[in-house]
Amino acid sequence: MSERQSYHMTPEELQRHGQEALAWLARYQERVEELPVLSRVEPGAIRALLPPSAPEEPEPFAALLADLERIILPGITHWQSPSFFAYFPANTSGPAILGELLIAGLGVQGMLWATSPACTELETHVLDWLVELLGLPAAFRSDASGGGVIQDSASSAALCALLAARDRATGWETNRAGLAGQAPLVAYASPETHSSVEKAAVIAGLGREGLRLIETDANHALRPDRLAAAIAADRAAGRLPCFVCATVGTTSSNAVDPLRAIGEIARREGLWLHVDGAMAGTAAICPELRHLQDGLELADSYCFNPHKWMFTSLDCDAFWVADRAALVRTLSVLPEYLRNRATESGAVIDYRDWQVPLGRRFRALKLWFVLRWYGAEGLRHHVRRHVALAQEVARRVAASELFELAAPAPLNLVCFRPRHGDAFGERLLERLNASGELYLTHTRLDGRFTLRFMVGQSQTEARHVERAWQQIEAEAAALAAELAAGEGAPR
Amino acid sequence: MSERQSYHMTPEELQRHGQEALAWLARYQERVEELPVLSRVEPGAIRALLPPSAPEEPEPFAALLADLERIILPGITHWQSPSFFAYFPANTSGPAILGELLIAGLGVQGMLWATSPACTELETHVLDWLVELLGLPAAFRSDASGGGVIQDSASSAALCALLAARDRATGWETNRAGLAGQAPLVAYASPETHSSVEKAAVIAGLGREGLRLIETDANHALRPDRLAAAIAADRAAGRLPCFVCATVGTTSSNAVDPLRAIGEIARREGLWLHVDGAMAGTAAICPELRHLQDGLELADSYCFNPHKWMFTSLDCDAFWVADRAALVRTLSVLPEYLRNRATESGAVIDYRDWQVPLGRRFRALKLWFVLRWYGAEGLRHHVRRHVALAQEVARRVAASELFELAAPAPLNLVCFRPRHGDAFGERLLERLNASGELYLTHTRLDGRFTLRFMVGQSQTEARHVERAWQQIEAEAAALAAELAAGEGAPR
Repeated sequence: MSERQSYHMTPEELQRHGQEALAWLARYQERVEELPVLSRVEPGAIRALLPPSAPEEPEPFAALLADLERIILPGITHWQSPSFFAYFPANTSGPAILGELLIAGLGVQGMLWATSPACTELETHVLDWLVELLGLPAAFRSDASGGGVIQDSASSAALCALLAARDRATGWETNRAGLAGQAPLVAYASPETHSSVEKAAVIAGLGREGLRLIETDANHALRPDRLAAAIAADRAAGRLPCFVCATVGTTSSNAVDPLRAIGEIARREGLWLHVDGAMAGTAAICPELRHLQDGLELADSYCFNPHKWMFTSLDCDAFWVADRAALVRTLSVLPEYLRNRATESGAVIDYRDWQVPLGRRFRALKLWFVLRWYGAEGLRHHVRRHVALAQEVARRVAASELFELAAPAPLNLVCFRPRHGDAFGERLLERLNASGELYLTHTRLDGRFTLRFMVGQSQTEARHVERAWQQIEAEAAALAAELAAGEGAPR
Repeated sequence: MSERQSYHMTPEELQRHGQEALAWLARYQERVEELPVLSRVEPGAIRALLPPSAPEEPEPFAALLADLERIILPGITHWQSPSFFAYFPANTSGPAILGELLIAGLGVQGMLWATSPACTELETHVLDWLVELLGLPAAFRSDASGGGVIQDSASSAALCALLAARDRATGWETNRAGLAGQAPLVAYASPETHSSVEKAAVIAGLGREGLRLIETDANHALRPDRLAAAIAADRAAGRLPCFVCATVGTTSSNAVDPLRAIGEIARREGLWLHVDGAMAGTAAICPELRHLQDGLELADSYCFNPHKWMFTSLDCDAFWVADRAALVRTLSVLPEYLRNRATESGAVIDYRDWQVPLGRRFRALKLWFVLRWYGAEGLRHHVRRHVALAQEVARRVAASELFELAAPAPLNLVCFRPRHGDAFGERLLERLNASGELYLTHTRLDGRFTLRFMVGQSQTEARHVERAWQQIEAEAAALAAELAAGEGAPR
């Protein structure tokens, strides 16, 4: 065994190798714009470059960085490219990156208040800040009946909400004795609701069929009248409605469900209303965009992802409940080895009771860094910039002869389709992504293949959007010409 | 709005501020040994130092670091202190910290193979490495019927295992239609099993009463005969046994359940056997400690946490299944907007189907860094060192007049109690932790208050253990003397 194995990396080595890693990262940021956005490797290509066994002897840090460049980089789809227009963004930023560095270095496990009071209190505090900053209902504040917690994802937030809804609806009988003896529980969403709600229904024991998908209107928003009718039908059939999920900014098209109308039904019927604002939620930092969440005060829970559009690296989902007691009663388990004086005093929050896992990272630190480094004004600046860029794309689409808008574009996502139909759209998307110049993804709206142009990556500027749009138009024109030539050519 | 708000942190600024953060971290590592291990702040003390609202204007990075030092540091319980002997460790290390820096910088979201092939393939590959390195069953390899995935925690791993067990036992009827129409499903564990299994039973809809706690033997290990009897009784009562969790190294005392005997019952009865080796699993890197996992080839799933004892910062739980098809069938949901050619080819893994959340970080990168930077020999060196230090503590306890061993100490955890009884133990623990010199936690074994001395923090050396033991003995002797004086004094 070599000498070095006896030791851990010293503080001096951490600084030296850290500077090497930072230099690599800075160089990555400088050139990410030129790299093919969507990775071009074939399945198995990365594994083929990796040795079949872990090394017996230690390797120098330089070897790790060299292989990051040689083996890993070609297999990266560049979410941090300014020409990443796919899915929803997963933004990172300088203050978030350095926050993660410090989180890993402090190595705190914040399952209990006592296992690092600052981890818990900063989280509670920063989520209270966000209630004010985003104009969220006062009930979500920790000094009211509610409170916020950072989850890993909107998926986990939806699951926690559904679990609390399930147990509240049965007076916590399901929590005690399970679902087997109960009337079938029913949850409601729309076909445009994020797939994580279906997954949550499976996990929580309602089953896929326990989630009722309610028809949407012409704008892909959930129809409250159909929701009310479905609830009535389920009650008549002896089932127990317990939960409805409404979305501010659906994944496919950024559709906004009518929160107020849905919330009034939920209140009247005793359903838990969860609102998913995973991507669009950040927009509420701008007062002029806050109307999208009108009616949110009727929600029992709400989440949005700072790791999507608030420059806070994955993972960071902000989740609030209006009644923390219901959530804690659902998720609390207290074994002897976690008992401690602070917990028993009742004066502190133990966030392990607000989430699925026991262990938790100090994620509040990076969110705090982002909110302070940018300032609210800095964040608003970027949100407004992205929305303006997307609106310009929407105008281009509307003015184009080749394309049409497939849905309203209330924020930073533009859904459009070529007038030549689905097969044309699929071929177009394939060619565009194969070019490496940009990355778009698709969805289906009204049963038709639809391209999504999402503007939200931190570094995306007007020139990237302009270049992408020109390429889309040029590629579509070329494809249309080929098609016309092919049709016209003798067979 | 100031000029800076128009911009993100530039690559040059990232390097400069990164060096400031690294310098702070290096200085933290140098002095962590002298800081009070358990934070001394009172509830609310951290929040009282934070402004009531988020800043409107941006703040310089130096202000963030200054407040990290001034506000946050006093509220940290130092999991990275070499005198942290509490709970199970949550180790970090240089290569893991720098891995996290790069993970945040690349900002990859690895929900699908296509969204960064390297994120998926490195994860599959490194988990195959670990199968070999830890002598795990060949069925867990990705080129067999199984495969590995990184979860955030052993809690989430247990939940995924229970969900697959639940749905497999009903031919996926529960997945489709929920639990309401089914016979009550039953899961089994011991009172020493981690609390996350009870939480998983609640989440999965079995309810707290759907988890049967099976009696343990004198060494706190689950009794297979009682398990078999409980399964028979549940079947006779019309219930459906589906899952058993066995533990290698329980949280309270590092007890090892008899995997082979439990596994044979599980096979015979068609139960899913999940094995939780969250902390102790790392020990299997040493061939001489591998006997603890004898019988693991009978398990349907297994997990251990590299973020506990393998120097890979939180969060990183390694989870394997012997039959990946069962897991994927349980957790897969495929909306249109995630469809892509690679997924449809069937040639790739999409890890979103192996976990609760959709989104996922590139955690394999830090694990790869750790395995390579230390090398297998380096990791073995530290594991052996920790075990030897704990065994020395166990010898001291056995030789002490003030204490007795409360359980066998097969690895790096020593459970002991003062001969003076529970109240004495509680006061002793309080005084020790209040000193700031070390941090121990407690449990109850055989109904009695028990101190836990865990040796597993990366930087813990013989001198830290020696000093802690001397302090424990001195404090206990002082307390005993006070007690004797108090008893002897006139009333």
